[in-house]
This record gives sequence, C-alpha cells and structure tokens, in this order.
Amino acid sequence: MNMARIIGTVWATRKHPTLEGFSLQIIQPVNSDLSPVGLPIVGTDSIGSGQPDELIYYVTSGEAPIPFDKQCPTDVTIIGIVDRIVRK
Amino acid sequence: MNMARIIGTVWATRKHPTLEGFSLQIIQPVNSDLSPVGLPIVGTDSIGSGQPDELIYYVTSGEAPIPFDKQCPTDVTIIGIVDRIVRK
Amino acid sequence: MNMARIIGTVWATRKHPTLEGFSLQIIQPVNSDLSPVGLPIVGTDSIGSGQPDELIYYVTSGEAPIPFDKQCPTDVTIIGIVDRIVRK
Amino acid sequence: MNMARIIGTVWATRKHPTLEGFSLQIIQPVNSDLSPVGLPIVGTDSIGSGQPDELIYYVTSGEAPIPFDKQCPTDVTIIGIVDRIVRK
Amino acid sequence: MNMARIIGTVWATRKHPTLEGFSLQIIQPVNSDLSPVGLPIVGTDSIGSGQPDELIYYVTSGEAPIPFDKQCPTDVTIIGIVDRIVRK
Repeated sequence: MNMARIIGTVWATRKHPTLEGFSLQIIQPVNSDLSPVGLPIVGTDSIGSGQPDELIYYVTSGEAPIPFDKQCPTDVTIIGIVDRIVRK
Repeated sequence: MNMARIIGTVWATRKHPTLEGFSLQIIQPVNSDLSPVGLPIVGTDSIGSGQPDELIYYVTSGEAPIPFDKQCPTDVTIIGIVDRIVRK
Repeated sequence: MNMARIIGTVWATRKHPTLEGFSLQIIQPVNSDLSPVGLPIVGTDSIGSGQPDELIYYVTSGEAPIPFDKQCPTDVTIIGIVDRIVRK
Repeated sequence: MNMARIIGTVWATRKHPTLEGFSLQIIQPVNSDLSPVGLPIVGTDSIGSGQPDELIYYVTSGEAPIPFDKQCPTDVTIIGIVDRIVRK
Repeated sequence: MNMARIIGTVWATRKHPTLEGFSLQIIQPVNSDLSPVGLPIVGTDSIGSGQPDELIYYVTSGEAPIPFDKQCPTDVTIIGIVDRIVRK
C-alpha cells in the first residue's frame, strides 16, 4: 500500500454502472516522510474519505475491488485514513 | 485509475475472438492538470468512447476484463468519460 | 495493451508443462508511432505470430493466461496482429 | 519478491474491517547487497515481523492477500524474515 | 516473461508455510542480448534451477503461483531454463 493526500475529485456522468455512487478522488501519493512522490492518480473511495488534504492509504491492482460487494473495475481504492506514523 | 485522451485507433483482423466487436483506442495518459504524461497505450473501449481528443479514464491490470461479460484478454479498459475535475 | 515487433525466439527444453507447444517470442515494445520503447521482453504466442519484424499487440499481467484453455504461467501473451493504425 | 527493512509503523483507526488486527509496517526496499533502493512502502505483516531494522521479504500484487484466511485488500504483504543471503 | 541469471540464494527459517521446501533464488534480470538490466530480485524456483550463473526465465505477478499445486504467496517464479536464443 502507499499513502497519499486528497487533492481533488473527478466527475463523470458516463461510467461503468458498478461505479455509480462511489466518489472518485484525485490523490497525490506521498513518501513515508509525507513529501509528494510521483504523479497524482484517481482512486475510488471505500471508507468515506474526501476531505481536502486528508492523509489516506490506498491499495492498487488486483486487490482494489475487494472492498466492494460487487465486482467493480477499480485499480486504485482508498482503504484507510492515517492517524499517525511512528518511525523506528 | 488514470485519465487519458483518445488519440487514435488500432485495426487488427487477426485477434483473440473475445475481443471481436470492441474498438481498440490509442490513448495518451494525462496528469490531473490534463498535461500528457508517459507514452500512449492501447485500451479496449467499454462505454462508447472514441471521439478525437475525448477525455476518458481507464482501469488497468486484473480489473480490465471486469466490464465485459465474458473473460477477455485486455489489460487496459476505458470505463468512463470525464465531465469535469474539481481541485480541492 | 501495448504494441511490439517480433525480434527473436527463446528455446527452452526444461519448462513448465502447460507451456509445451507454445512458442516464446522475444518482442520489442513500440510506441504508437512505432518507434522502440523500453527493453525487449519474452511473450507467449496465442495467435500464430512469429514472422520477423511482425507488428503485434500483447496483454500482460493477470490477463495473459486468458487466451489459453488451461491455466498457464505466462505474464506476457501476444493476442493480435496489427493491420494498421489511424491517428485522430 | 523483494527484500526490505522495517523502518516504521502506520496507525489508522478508520480502515477496511478485514485489515483489523494486522500491523501495517513502513518498509524500505533493499537490493541484494542490502543497500536501499527506491522509496519506502507500506506492507501488511503476516508473520510477526516489526523489529526496528529487521530484514524481511515481501510479496506484492495479486499474491499479497494469500497469507490471510479472508480476502483482505492488501497489495504488499510481509511473508518471511531473512536469516542470511548466499552469493553464488 | 523475462530472462535472468541465478546469482544467489536467500535463507529464511521464518516464512509462510506454503513456501516451505521451495528454494528462493536471487536472480539478476537480463536483456535479450543477455546484459544485466535493473536490480536483482528474489524468485521462487519451480523447475529445479539454482546453478550459479544459470540462465532462466521467470513469470511475475498473478501468474507466479500457477506452477504450485497449492496457493502460494510468490510474485516471481522461475519457470524454465533457457537453452538458446535465436534473433530474427
């Protein structure tokens, strides 16, 4: 998994029906020191995230549909909101 | 998911039978500010996209066959047309 | 999917039994303007490709075994021969 | 698989229910000579790892949920602790 | 698939039980002209490879567990030993 910050939202009226009702967030991946890394991507929210600048973590690839009851064509899904990070 | 613009079409008479009837679009991935990023790829259309320069979003990897009723060997599938983007 | 040109063949007598009978082609990925991009990879043929310099397209990752009747450990499979490309 | 060192932990109260009870470690991938390579990522622990600087190996992508009894949206899972490496 | 050379072995006493009995090889990916490319990775052997400098090919991602009878959390599996390469 990787961490990211919420930076925007995508609106689409024409889309795959299994994606109806789930918000699509634009997220900026961040490093473990919370600095931006790489380019923003679009993720499907599964836990009620969406606050500006909110720190979340997300799952990609074959695991991204798992949080949804029905099979859903998402390859980036937001699965948690980060409270804090402890360095060892 | 990532966003991209339609920039071309691939024609192939000899192909896997489950792909018959679906158009193959050449798409240029774009960043969240809609500037091009990386190289064009080939995606299978699932929602009737194909207008020149149309802004779409697509899914990759294990989720790409989900929009199709039968198992279909696609790893990039166009699943929505973007209406607008809101930055937070 | 991406496009590539056939540039060689790999011969292996000791291999996973489900791969017996399928040729392994060395393919050079190409961009949408047909210039080479990245490094050659090894793909399993599913449609009778194999002519030198032939332009094909291939699927990767979880979708690569789909063209085969049995589960087969391939992560790059050639699934079509490109006739022509139209830019929009 | 790749090897990595444990460098931190992520705490999240709001997360997908199948991930309850599994620790999320921040891991720094390392090369085969144990020098750092690339950026830290977040992995789900499946074998009781978590000591500072511990050398582990992890699995990614579609195989990451396999160690868990239930389907769990993880794409990086720690599956072993490295004792030693032999170069040939 | 990609090709690689065997350059080492990883020993781990604490690991996921389905991986017991399979050797973990450190492999250096090579290009189609057999020059090294990218960084070494760790692969699970499925065909009895392990000779120093042996030229093998491997499968990654969702297809890596296929050679094993039981579901096994591997994302890189060695599936063949290369005899020779023919350039076209």
